[in-house]
Amino acid sequence: MVGHGFMGAAHSQAWRVAPRFFDLPLQPELTLLVGRDAGRTAAAASKWGWAETSTDWREAIARDDIDVIDIVTPGATHAEIAVAALQAGKHVLCEKPLANTAEEARAMADAAAAAEANGVRAMVGFTYRRLPATTHARNLVAGGAVGMVRQVRAVYLQDWLVDPDAPLTWRLQQEQAGSGVLGDLAAHAVDLAQYITGHRLTQVSGTLETLVPTRPLAAESPDGAVLGGAPGTGERGPVTVDDVALFTGRFEDGVLGSFEASRMATGRKNALRLEVSGTLGALSFDLEDLNFLEFYDYTAPAVRQGFTRIMVTEPTHPYVSAWWPAGHSLGYEHGFVHQAKDFVEAIAAGTQPSPSFADGLQVQEVLDAVSASAGKSSVWTPVA
Amino acid sequence: MVGHGFMGAAHSQAWRVAPRFFDLPLQPELTLLVGRDAGRTAAAASKWGWAETSTDWREAIARDDIDVIDIVTPGATHAEIAVAALQAGKHVLCEKPLANTAEEARAMADAAAAAEANGVRAMVGFTYRRLPATTHARNLVAGGAVGMVRQVRAVYLQDWLVDPDAPLTWRLQQEQAGSGVLGDLAAHAVDLAQYITGHRLTQVSGTLETLVPTRPLAAESPDGAVLGGAPGTGERGPVTVDDVALFTGRFEDGVLGSFEASRMATGRKNALRLEVSGTLGALSFDLEDLNFLEFYDYTAPAVRQGFTRIMVTEPTHPYVSAWWPAGHSLGYEHGFVHQAKDFVEAIAAGTQPSPSFADGLQVQEVLDAVSASAGKSSVWTPVA
Amino acid sequence: MVGHGFMGAAHSQAWRVAPRFFDLPLQPELTLLVGRDAGRTAAAASKWGWAETSTDWREAIARDDIDVIDIVTPGATHAEIAVAALQAGKHVLCEKPLANTAEEARAMADAAAAAEANGVRAMVGFTYRRLPATTHARNLVAGGAVGMVRQVRAVYLQDWLVDPDAPLTWRLQQEQAGSGVLGDLAAHAVDLAQYITGHRLTQVSGTLETLVPTRPLAAESPDGAVLGGAPGTGERGPVTVDDVALFTGRFEDGVLGSFEASRMATGRKNALRLEVSGTLGALSFDLEDLNFLEFYDYTAPAVRQGFTRIMVTEPTHPYVSAWWPAGHSLGYEHGFVHQAKDFVEAIAAGTQPSPSFADGLQVQEVLDAVSASAGKSSVWTPVA
Amino acid sequence: MVGHGFMGAAHSQAWRVAPRFFDLPLQPELTLLVGRDAGRTAAAASKWGWAETSTDWREAIARDDIDVIDIVTPGATHAEIAVAALQAGKHVLCEKPLANTAEEARAMADAAAAAEANGVRAMVGFTYRRLPATTHARNLVAGGAVGMVRQVRAVYLQDWLVDPDAPLTWRLQQEQAGSGVLGDLAAHAVDLAQYITGHRLTQVSGTLETLVPTRPLAAESPDGAVLGGAPGTGERGPVTVDDVALFTGRFEDGVLGSFEASRMATGRKNALRLEVSGTLGALSFDLEDLNFLEFYDYTAPAVRQGFTRIMVTEPTHPYVSAWWPAGHSLGYEHGFVHQAKDFVEAIAAGTQPSPSFADGLQVQEVLDAVSASAGKSSVWTPVA
Repeated sequence: MVGHGFMGAAHSQAWRVAPRFFDLPLQPELTLLVGRDAGRTAAAASKWGWAETSTDWREAIARDDIDVIDIVTPGATHAEIAVAALQAGKHVLCEKPLANTAEEARAMADAAAAAEANGVRAMVGFTYRRLPATTHARNLVAGGAVGMVRQVRAVYLQDWLVDPDAPLTWRLQQEQAGSGVLGDLAAHAVDLAQYITGHRLTQVSGTLETLVPTRPLAAESPDGAVLGGAPGTGERGPVTVDDVALFTGRFEDGVLGSFEASRMATGRKNALRLEVSGTLGALSFDLEDLNFLEFYDYTAPAVRQGFTRIMVTEPTHPYVSAWWPAGHSLGYEHGFVHQAKDFVEAIAAGTQPSPSFADGLQVQEVLDAVSASAGKSSVWTPVA
Repeated sequence: MVGHGFMGAAHSQAWRVAPRFFDLPLQPELTLLVGRDAGRTAAAASKWGWAETSTDWREAIARDDIDVIDIVTPGATHAEIAVAALQAGKHVLCEKPLANTAEEARAMADAAAAAEANGVRAMVGFTYRRLPATTHARNLVAGGAVGMVRQVRAVYLQDWLVDPDAPLTWRLQQEQAGSGVLGDLAAHAVDLAQYITGHRLTQVSGTLETLVPTRPLAAESPDGAVLGGAPGTGERGPVTVDDVALFTGRFEDGVLGSFEASRMATGRKNALRLEVSGTLGALSFDLEDLNFLEFYDYTAPAVRQGFTRIMVTEPTHPYVSAWWPAGHSLGYEHGFVHQAKDFVEAIAAGTQPSPSFADGLQVQEVLDAVSASAGKSSVWTPVA
Repeated sequence: MVGHGFMGAAHSQAWRVAPRFFDLPLQPELTLLVGRDAGRTAAAASKWGWAETSTDWREAIARDDIDVIDIVTPGATHAEIAVAALQAGKHVLCEKPLANTAEEARAMADAAAAAEANGVRAMVGFTYRRLPATTHARNLVAGGAVGMVRQVRAVYLQDWLVDPDAPLTWRLQQEQAGSGVLGDLAAHAVDLAQYITGHRLTQVSGTLETLVPTRPLAAESPDGAVLGGAPGTGERGPVTVDDVALFTGRFEDGVLGSFEASRMATGRKNALRLEVSGTLGALSFDLEDLNFLEFYDYTAPAVRQGFTRIMVTEPTHPYVSAWWPAGHSLGYEHGFVHQAKDFVEAIAAGTQPSPSFADGLQVQEVLDAVSASAGKSSVWTPVA
Repeated sequence: MVGHGFMGAAHSQAWRVAPRFFDLPLQPELTLLVGRDAGRTAAAASKWGWAETSTDWREAIARDDIDVIDIVTPGATHAEIAVAALQAGKHVLCEKPLANTAEEARAMADAAAAAEANGVRAMVGFTYRRLPATTHARNLVAGGAVGMVRQVRAVYLQDWLVDPDAPLTWRLQQEQAGSGVLGDLAAHAVDLAQYITGHRLTQVSGTLETLVPTRPLAAESPDGAVLGGAPGTGERGPVTVDDVALFTGRFEDGVLGSFEASRMATGRKNALRLEVSGTLGALSFDLEDLNFLEFYDYTAPAVRQGFTRIMVTEPTHPYVSAWWPAGHSLGYEHGFVHQAKDFVEAIAAGTQPSPSFADGLQVQEVLDAVSASAGKSSVWTPVA
């Protein structure tokens, strides 16, 4: 695994836990953890149970006893590592967004396509697809429960930038983060909307906004990246990414979508919300309430219609039978466990895991189209 | 109408509004308002549109141009007025609880039975039965939607006595109010539970509790009753009624119920909540959200089961077609309008309106059994 | 009152009820009801308590004993009636949207400005401002409870057009309705967002969409308008208005807004939802739950922060003290009662009621800018 | 660890995960798993990562390299194992209920008290105390946020016995399970109510009910216990435990409580709900929504009062800083991880972990008092 921030903890937990609850055809081993700083990397490896450490990701790729490279670094570094790993015949699991630019993402998707011919697998980490409730939502749509989809509403609302004096971390710097909420939050909303509806966005009209243009310089980000400036002096630097992204999208087959991603949504901590309106029903999901899915059956008798709050913890729901009895909640990290399971199973079965790097590229192209539209007074812009 | 407190406003509104939204077979006229204090009664009559006033309810009974007596005074006065009115051949609508004691209630029920032989009608005002959601709940149970009922949970929670220095009004004096939460709140819970399930309580085990035993003396209650003591001096008098009632009940056919009524439930303003658990489904209602009814269909496919939040505002729902388009909320007072409509229709049709005085008596007998049980260490006590 | 559809019922109820619960300085009298069809008008007048009827609104304007003209007809007729009434010195209450075009609305606003010089008042009926929860929201924002407003999310979702075979009524014909969801639903969202935040929209980027382009011809709309075609034959005619409106808006002072209005939002019956995100707090309102307002206090201790679900039924909340004790719900129609009260009080006090025709015109200009933007690939378009 | 049913999975996960997220002073090692059936035990050990297996718990106690005995077997076996382990100087973590009878529990508490003198620790597994939301609730009460506690409402509702043909497993046999919902569910409600309020129950009035008296015989329970009868023939055997427990309780200092435990609450999957009403505020928790705690601050300005839905996922909330960023949900199993952490820390620190066996005994005494009361027509019965 390359990287050891917050995502590293989630992935490590997934690798360790997946084989304990699912009968995996192959057993993951936590062989090597790679980080820039030797001391911090060693501490993380010790805590999370990685056998060895390195400060050079190339070492991981060079080793014969390593079959899978798991990339959890910031987006700017994804392309180089992933392409090299795939070319070396390693299976790759790469955190989202696939890359900071569509160009990089395209190189990665190309490398994945080439590798696939050799039985090498690549997957991008949109874990929110892999919650029981979201997978159940996809299954309901695919099974016709909402009829023909007409509208999608998707928002991903957080509030950790509400304070105008929150520090200027790497996530707020365009060179490192690529974008702000667009790549961080809107990417999830786009992937989930496309996954659940089974339709892809074809054009968008968007707006990007930086509501707090400067923030106090921070010596170091929580992820260890050293930033410029003189922290503690009150000096402020420019925020070079978007705080809010608003866009409208058209999907294939006339589906209409509205999207918002914000880090300024006071009081909303992790509200990835998605609502699908169809000719025969509707679905509503909120990540802050991730064990539930609301379903409206427009074919039910009129006097009984309403949104049904399904607690998606029955053994017959996706992934659930491996866990606890009905009514026992799962949490955020379980999506990562399911991702590890599905990835390992795909490798063992010799099939392409989903979402592929091509899927990740397509999401990146949607985000790029939003940026392009935002730069042209929100004019409708086709997705590449 | 005899009485003009808060209930008087609700009933006046009902008489005036019912014929505007429903096609009534007879037209209510607001002829005479009766109250103890001439000035206050005149003010109320003017505000609510009553043509004349009186300080003696016997005048109302003596007049030939008055067909209906509507009693909205405190419970201690119900029996005398209602019996006299029925004997004089007036139809009677009487606020709940029917009386402060089962003895008085029995006299009223007897008078109503005698009057019925002469085509004179009597009804007790459990208006919460007449909300679209509660009537819908009854219909669903009666139609088999929850199968055989097994359990009922009913609470009626308010918090207006949380402050230990809230004044000692007539509602907290046993002689005037009869009881505390028992007659005021638990009566509603009992009636609603019996109405919706179609089963009657046969025995109870109960506890009554006064959590704040003394309160500051008040010169006058909001309803005008002069209370003893020296208000403003900080002098306190004893609370002689219950703040909290907790009881377990057995209904006919083995249904098990739990009940709570409290004026000490901090933060709960008007939470009359009822949940019915049956062999094939469940229902959940909360008066603080009175336009909604939650329904669980245990016969639905397992992966789609959950509580369905039905917005009971469709034209096909009870009472709703007379009002607004789907999705437009009704409020507290609409139950009174529906009561007025149903009462007028029963009079015109020559049928017995429901709940009858006999029904009101039976609720009173349940409450008396709770009191009796509470006085005997909560031992199970049959309902008379 | 001119017109007697669903809005006529709401306004009639308001005129009758307002003086019973509020101490009004002037007493409304229901003098004359005007409608196209004599029989239907007479029936409505009888039901709702209007003394006389007419088939010509000019009669109302000509009569000396009529001081107020209440216009509840479809939008296409507003301008002519309102301008004539104002010129005749009648106070005018006009349903929203003020008119079907900004041009008509401008004429009305001009007439209102001229009339105001003579002490004649004009108000447009955005009643959702006048619910306790929405007025409370405005008061909280005005009092600084959310700090500086940054974002607004407003949707107005209904689902009565989900069925592609729902009939082609006048509301779906551009000539009569002016627009679809834009004037009917988005108008409310825009007014409420501006009212609560105290900021006005200055530019918009919008999309309008007709998801079901043809519908079965209907002989007659629910409002009595005869439509062309051969109903019952299955013949379909074109829907000439929008089913869905999506737009992004910039308000004064950098506030960013997102808006959706839809009649295709399966399962949503009357979901006018508004969320305000500010530097110190947030507010969230949903018309389907109109007795509640959610408030997030970002200045509270971190461990206690969360959305507080305020039941806006305390005597200290706006309008509530006139009604029932704490915890007793109000409904949809109470907004109309409050509107009648406020309008009468403004007339008596000789002050300008709000929202004025100028306010109604400004909302119309926002909607026109949305239409214009939608016609130009959603390019950002200034509000006139 | 002795036992390997569903609880065994939860405990194994806890031992493996706790040291990865918390900095523990001692490192748990999964040494030996004990079960009746060698094959099943080996499979469980392999899946969950236990190094060795045995079919005799005495082996675990005899081994010098084992310091801790974790007991997750059915309640009937707890006492023998725990007492032997404590006498052998092993620290013991024992699942709840501590035992099937107060007599056994008393022996265990005595053994724990004797062992404590030698620095040996014993803890009973009420893990629901150790969710961030419940611990936060306790902290709020302890800090005075709700003032003086007056009332507690606690229910634990499940619905897995709604079907009258659900099989007769060991959990429904008095000899093995001790009781039905009383020990399984009510035990949690009692512990949580006492933990959060800081008050202990002193007397109770209770009712126990078996709503479905016979059920189809099953060859084998999910836990492997062979039951009598001829499964598959439709033959039914008697349910010898309670399906529903209803009781009222008095705590120290006049606090009044109501309790229900049911496996017949159609649609409720795991609804351990607790509400505390105090003089200055209230708290409400629901295990089906375990990341949230609702708090009502009665000291807030009246117009802003309401239940605040706190998402208990901030780094400043109990246990949370070890996990994910704000807004990322935890699940059921995290309570077990926190229990493992707290137990290990207590052992390392040489302090008594909580809840102790004495605490577990006291809960058992409450349950016994409920049973005794139920056997005496619900008469109020003191807790031993």
